[in-house]
Amino acid sequence: MNSIMGVSLIGFARGQVGGGARPYDPNKREFFGPEFTWARPEEVSSAIQKAKDAAPVLAALGHKPKSDFLQLIAKGIEDNSARIIELATRETALPAGRIQGEIGRTTGQLRLFAKLVEEGWWRDVRVDHADPTRKPVPKPDVRSMLVPLGPVAVFSSSNFPLAFSVAGGDTASAFAAGCPVIVKAHQGHLATSELVGTLIVDAVRQSGLPEGTFSLLFGPGRTVGIDLVTHPAIQAVGFTGSRSGGRALMDAAAARKQPIPVYAEMGSINPMVILPGALVDRSQSLAVGLAGSVTLGNGQFCTNPGLIILEAGSQSDIFLQQLGSELAKVIPAAMLTESICHEFIAGLAKFTELPEIKVHTRVDVTNGQVGPTLLTTSGQDFLGQPALLEELFGPTTIAVLCNGIEEIIEVVKALDGQLTGTIHAGPEDNPQIKILYPILAGKVGRLVHNGFPTGVEVCHAMNHGGPYPASADGRSTSVGTRAITRFTRPMCWQNFPECLLPEELKESNPLGLFRLVNGTWNKDLPE
Amino acid sequence: MNSIMGVSLIGFARGQVGGGARPYDPNKREFFGPEFTWARPEEVSSAIQKAKDAAPVLAALGHKPKSDFLQLIAKGIEDNSARIIELATRETALPAGRIQGEIGRTTGQLRLFAKLVEEGWWRDVRVDHADPTRKPVPKPDVRSMLVPLGPVAVFSSSNFPLAFSVAGGDTASAFAAGCPVIVKAHQGHLATSELVGTLIVDAVRQSGLPEGTFSLLFGPGRTVGIDLVTHPAIQAVGFTGSRSGGRALMDAAAARKQPIPVYAEMGSINPMVILPGALVDRSQSLAVGLAGSVTLGNGQFCTNPGLIILEAGSQSDIFLQQLGSELAKVIPAAMLTESICHEFIAGLAKFTELPEIKVHTRVDVTNGQVGPTLLTTSGQDFLGQPALLEELFGPTTIAVLCNGIEEIIEVVKALDGQLTGTIHAGPEDNPQIKILYPILAGKVGRLVHNGFPTGVEVCHAMNHGGPYPASADGRSTSVGTRAITRFTRPMCWQNFPECLLPEELKESNPLGLFRLVNGTWNKDLPE
Repeated sequence: MNSIMGVSLIGFARGQVGGGARPYDPNKREFFGPEFTWARPEEVSSAIQKAKDAAPVLAALGHKPKSDFLQLIAKGIEDNSARIIELATRETALPAGRIQGEIGRTTGQLRLFAKLVEEGWWRDVRVDHADPTRKPVPKPDVRSMLVPLGPVAVFSSSNFPLAFSVAGGDTASAFAAGCPVIVKAHQGHLATSELVGTLIVDAVRQSGLPEGTFSLLFGPGRTVGIDLVTHPAIQAVGFTGSRSGGRALMDAAAARKQPIPVYAEMGSINPMVILPGALVDRSQSLAVGLAGSVTLGNGQFCTNPGLIILEAGSQSDIFLQQLGSELAKVIPAAMLTESICHEFIAGLAKFTELPEIKVHTRVDVTNGQVGPTLLTTSGQDFLGQPALLEELFGPTTIAVLCNGIEEIIEVVKALDGQLTGTIHAGPEDNPQIKILYPILAGKVGRLVHNGFPTGVEVCHAMNHGGPYPASADGRSTSVGTRAITRFTRPMCWQNFPECLLPEELKESNPLGLFRLVNGTWNKDLPE
Repeated sequence: MNSIMGVSLIGFARGQVGGGARPYDPNKREFFGPEFTWARPEEVSSAIQKAKDAAPVLAALGHKPKSDFLQLIAKGIEDNSARIIELATRETALPAGRIQGEIGRTTGQLRLFAKLVEEGWWRDVRVDHADPTRKPVPKPDVRSMLVPLGPVAVFSSSNFPLAFSVAGGDTASAFAAGCPVIVKAHQGHLATSELVGTLIVDAVRQSGLPEGTFSLLFGPGRTVGIDLVTHPAIQAVGFTGSRSGGRALMDAAAARKQPIPVYAEMGSINPMVILPGALVDRSQSLAVGLAGSVTLGNGQFCTNPGLIILEAGSQSDIFLQQLGSELAKVIPAAMLTESICHEFIAGLAKFTELPEIKVHTRVDVTNGQVGPTLLTTSGQDFLGQPALLEELFGPTTIAVLCNGIEEIIEVVKALDGQLTGTIHAGPEDNPQIKILYPILAGKVGRLVHNGFPTGVEVCHAMNHGGPYPASADGRSTSVGTRAITRFTRPMCWQNFPECLLPEELKESNPLGLFRLVNGTWNKDLPE
């Protein structure tokens, strides 16, 4: 049993004890457990130096040991699930079922990357043979594949204490790519972070990997976080959190002597257009589904729909009545952290004070237990009030009642970049969706048809990322196997003899990889 | 015949005539042809607005018409090759054979992308089927592929008036991805730029594509260029040129409200390690090959080797003698532009004034005709003089004479990011190269074994890009088919009915694309 000590993990070493903050129970509204010590600058440097030393070893690691390492982390988490559930439910106020689900998602994600690593096609191996007789100049032998970038800094998010945290998607994909990882823990689940961190360290040891493969640092973003991002040895950053936090890291990374990529996922209002035909079809079931989608995780998902765009009229009045009733049934719950709760209450107050906003349904906050709110505005008021483009992180959504399809189009055109965009339609809405989807596609990373955006499936085809400000930029996903490429770069070997080539590129193809050879995919491999 | 008018191409319209600068003949050292007018701010805006309007049309364009468009540009260039050679040789002082070769390379590149577009596998299509029975939550149908980013600004380079210019690699890959392109012409070959620009406009018209598909702007980088990069509608930037120019664009792009990617290729000193065994093996032939590689294009390639790292001793003394003799045979020639010539002469003077530098072989500059120079320094002096890490663009190279393999390793470790890194070795150097290649690999985008880095093969496997400051970052190539991905982002469709899905993603796979379906590549497609 790994006991919680409240200190950073610097490779196989422990940070110094000194005191900083204790874990907080948002339900009981009290602190518990040991004091956590913020990593000191020399501890940050030490973690980075160890990661730098580990980088070439991990880059040269074979597919099998790398895959085994990922499997071992998954097993460690599963074996310790009871203790993880105990700590995480207490620290985040999320129910045990949700944490159990997240353990499944996190271990599934690690195993998906383990399988990807074993299959090896993610390397994107390309081989072009030499032609010494070509005129006017001979053609050289050229081979290339994706290789790891080097040490990666990962910033945990508050809202997924496992799946987007210490052993979450960014860590799994960076390890899969062959990069050492230094996690900056989120202060919303300190004890869970330390426990999961020690499980990763155990896996590093058991796998015989260099100790710099993984470190976990506790401390504030503006000191420990910025020290990490601005250190010359760090080669990429993964971040899930607020827009201000993400942009601060992007700016710090862009101002370095060597700028580095920051993959920041900064939230989204996830617009949903509900066309008249959908309301004719299934008003009540839509209200039930939408209420669930808005309040999933107490509205603390990056994919909760925060904006419902629909035509004003008697049908939408009925729908909002149904939606309001469904939302009113939701039992209030504590938010993830005290500061998220304060920010939500302050943000909601700001919204409700706007002359453009009407409160349709509201559940009051009692003893830190927060219930959902449904706000409404008109299309014209929405277009005139840029504050409504901002995400309000929590169980609330704004219905924008538009004067016809043209105004719906105007509202969609006014939106910033988003993670997702959804349309609900009935059969008679076909002409409208053919206009709306191309506009929405330019704004989002994922389109959802007649469904709900919450719940991001971990699979090969998923894209979780969108045009700025949803993400740092829309070129990368933080969920699904495509995420491995964010921590890689192409590397080319020219004119190399077989004995000096990496296994992946050898003419004999000893790993049996799927490769592009002289412009043709070698599809005839044995299964 | 498209006559040269000296005005920007704003879609199908022409910019206003006003006067700016005339094309320059570096051999005759005189101006010729019409005055070129710099694009005014409203012309830049107009080009961008047209590109913005064209973007959704190009994004929805089928594979076949897009491929045909690229083929048409290639044909236009071929049909006008005599006139292109006439103008380009005059403007750049490059010989006709070289321009002829570049026409072949440029048209070959366009056709390679045309084929890639038809084959369609670059879309990276992924399909994950729904499973409504899955517990605890049903699995949705999720499909994704790469889609174009939107309007792209391309900054032409001076040194490849065709292959890295108006219809060069960035333009070809951006068109292939489905992005409109606005080229900022290089002032070193104004007339060639306009001619090639008009050929692209002809192809746009003939293909029935929207006029905003392509524009060509003349003007300075600090006005026209910055206006382009900071305009909200521009979604990505391709650049080949100096480090200061590239970094200025990177900084401007990072400071935007919506930061955008800048793919800047900023040159490299392309280190070459020559181990003792290689000199024993083939000293004279190495000297011949290296002299050719250093002086190819009068040293104005981004891949000329500017740093030769070798062990001091009698073998290397002989080799430098041989290399000096070969370099002395090279006939001096004019450089691409007057300012490049001035910068080279000033930069070389700065280098030769350094106490750490000795001049081994030097050909004096006469009437603007520049010959090669061989400089030498010691390993210790190199390590103590950071100025020697900078690229000197022109026909010169520095030999660093090291005191044993340990010092060679130190010198390699001290290098910045590079496009290429080369090792020449004999059979007895195997233990050394096994230490050196992993270190060099961390610094470069392409490793070359017993060869020369100049000449970048246009093929699937090529990587032309490297860690900063060789490129903006090492994650992207400007040459080869992988370049298409720099102008794309992944996009996901969830729960869509067949009739609303793009062709690429339909269950019936009407385009016969190679796709990843439920984690397995569909290798059994008919050929």
